[in-house]
Amino acid sequence: MLAGKSYLMIPGPTPVPPAVVAAMSRPMIGHRSADFADLYRRVADKLRRVCQTSNEVFVLTSSGTGAMETAVANVISRGDKVLALITGNFGERFARIARAYGASVVEVNFGWGGAVDPQVVADYLRDREIKAVLATQNETSTGVANDIAALGRLLADHPALLLVDAISGLGGMDIRTDEWGVDLLVGASQKALMLPPGLAFVTVSPKAWRVIERNEGPRFYFDLQAARKAQANWNAPFTPAVSLFFGLEAALDMILAEGLPRVFERHALLAAAVRAAVRALGLELLAPDEHASHTVTAVVGPEGVAVDELRRVLYSRYGVSVAGGQGVLRGKIFRIAHMGFVDRADVLAVLAALEMALAELNYPVALGSGVRAAQEVFLGRRQS
Amino acid sequence: MLAGKSYLMIPGPTPVPPAVVAAMSRPMIGHRSADFADLYRRVADKLRRVCQTSNEVFVLTSSGTGAMETAVANVISRGDKVLALITGNFGERFARIARAYGASVVEVNFGWGGAVDPQVVADYLRDREIKAVLATQNETSTGVANDIAALGRLLADHPALLLVDAISGLGGMDIRTDEWGVDLLVGASQKALMLPPGLAFVTVSPKAWRVIERNEGPRFYFDLQAARKAQANWNAPFTPAVSLFFGLEAALDMILAEGLPRVFERHALLAAAVRAAVRALGLELLAPDEHASHTVTAVVGPEGVAVDELRRVLYSRYGVSVAGGQGVLRGKIFRIAHMGFVDRADVLAVLAALEMALAELNYPVALGSGVRAAQEVFLGRRQS
Repeated sequence: MLAGKSYLMIPGPTPVPPAVVAAMSRPMIGHRSADFADLYRRVADKLRRVCQTSNEVFVLTSSGTGAMETAVANVISRGDKVLALITGNFGERFARIARAYGASVVEVNFGWGGAVDPQVVADYLRDREIKAVLATQNETSTGVANDIAALGRLLADHPALLLVDAISGLGGMDIRTDEWGVDLLVGASQKALMLPPGLAFVTVSPKAWRVIERNEGPRFYFDLQAARKAQANWNAPFTPAVSLFFGLEAALDMILAEGLPRVFERHALLAAAVRAAVRALGLELLAPDEHASHTVTAVVGPEGVAVDELRRVLYSRYGVSVAGGQGVLRGKIFRIAHMGFVDRADVLAVLAALEMALAELNYPVALGSGVRAAQEVFLGRRQS
Repeated sequence: MLAGKSYLMIPGPTPVPPAVVAAMSRPMIGHRSADFADLYRRVADKLRRVCQTSNEVFVLTSSGTGAMETAVANVISRGDKVLALITGNFGERFARIARAYGASVVEVNFGWGGAVDPQVVADYLRDREIKAVLATQNETSTGVANDIAALGRLLADHPALLLVDAISGLGGMDIRTDEWGVDLLVGASQKALMLPPGLAFVTVSPKAWRVIERNEGPRFYFDLQAARKAQANWNAPFTPAVSLFFGLEAALDMILAEGLPRVFERHALLAAAVRAAVRALGLELLAPDEHASHTVTAVVGPEGVAVDELRRVLYSRYGVSVAGGQGVLRGKIFRIAHMGFVDRADVLAVLAALEMALAELNYPVALGSGVRAAQEVFLGRRQS
């Protein structure tokens, strides 16, 4: 590989656009200044538009996991019954966080590669004692997207709160926080939002606030009531990552200038192209079409090729980073992310490099066939 | 003021050196990559040198408060008796975090502007049931430095752990973690370490690990055992703020190239100059010389001048940002920080602007007299 020339196609962190880098390079300002308050107010407004919500949104200086913990710690009390819908690594993490806060967690596991079945959830929800449902919009570990709208409908007349980890979907896939009834939506900076890691987000519904105000669990840095009090003056309760806030505004401006519908279409198109290419190369997709993520595609490791070796060749020879599998899928899949600052030519380059790497590892591949399938998708001559 | 020309003299965030900005602008990399592991290993090694410790150090993606909570949450169990040594806002915060985790907090309050008196602490430490002592090295809200070495001596044969908030001192004032017996040292990126906010640090002694391993309090994002497990492979348990890690290495390289003794001398000299100037202008210093911080100087608001108006004039006409007072000192003091990427000419400019602003607010000031006092300190012709 040419030093410094890289294609970062992992599901976060993702490539950072030059305009965002430039914004982050601005001289530092104080976080108690009027300039910062103006910035935070603008950023919150733009972020609410991307989250499609009129709820309050909070920007945390932490990874996405910190925002997942924020959502849990502020609404779950010790002993609360919680329904955790698990489709992979990050669904399991959400459940683990709830257990760390003393919840009685009912896990419904749809398998790694499976999707949430709303009918199954409906059965569990006959239990009116359930205080919260933990769901993953886009399961990063498997490339499976779950139907959050359906969960929202199930919970419309149920007392439980709907907590959604939208970390790897937000800014790349449609998530209608208010319309779908999401009480606490969790996002992070380093995925489709095109920033470096370091910021995370949580939106809070009026229904959630009523629970938060009664919650007495231990929390300090992640205390949403403290955040709300500070935010009344567009302040942060603790020193925020100011340079990332500069970058966040630039990234949100890019997303809103492109327009959410076009952003979502672009991600759907890139996903369709990658899936078509994978199929054309004779490889197997982990997620079925009807539950396919638009931001990350998991591919089953081809027979006779060690996934880590494939990743090593892709990186060392072509500068292409793709992710391996996590947990039970370690060594069994690789994941190509196509989220954020990524367009068609990037995907074509990466698919071409994948073909080269497979050939170099003596896997029988018709060179150009994956690329051609993707091109046909881009030209509207093929679905996926 | 000339747009974009600013002197950020608040106690964090502080000015970011160009070399750090450049490092932070490097293309993003994956946090599970070998490149990141190499970076984290190098950064931890350099950070240990700055913390003067052979203990493990952890880099958190959070503000300094997150690292304070990490220190507390991992060693304090519900009902533990904790001695909180309070000399201002951040000492109070440390105590509040301990209470949030169910500690039985014994507060010893030395007043805002006062320093910890080790004799008083010695009396309290006759109680062998105390599990932890919470101390502030450098109380940012008052510009008072506390004698951590003395606390370490008192605790040498006591079972309690010593937790030290060194957030606004680390990288500017001497803190000998191992020699002084600090069990958990807490730092943050946006003070004398010359980075934007977003990273925080905690070092952990072997004595602290024995407590952490038995602790069962609720925590997830701030769980040091998870961090330790990940760090065995130079990984972070959750996605770290990669761009700030790039910057952190550049900043640590600058500090180690200057050399810790010279860094500490520079900060001491700047503090002495500011104090000499404040005295020459007939203004009152909040902290006595023997307990004066080297990184931030608190000045009592002059008779007849509204502190907020003085700050407004300094910023709007000269681009100089200084901090106001916090809590009980709001409206009563202003604080000039001189930490991190600051040298003598910066301080002279700021003092000259302070004289101008005072004159413009009709405060009787001998123009140039403060600057002259500072110059004499720099030339070795005056102490402070």
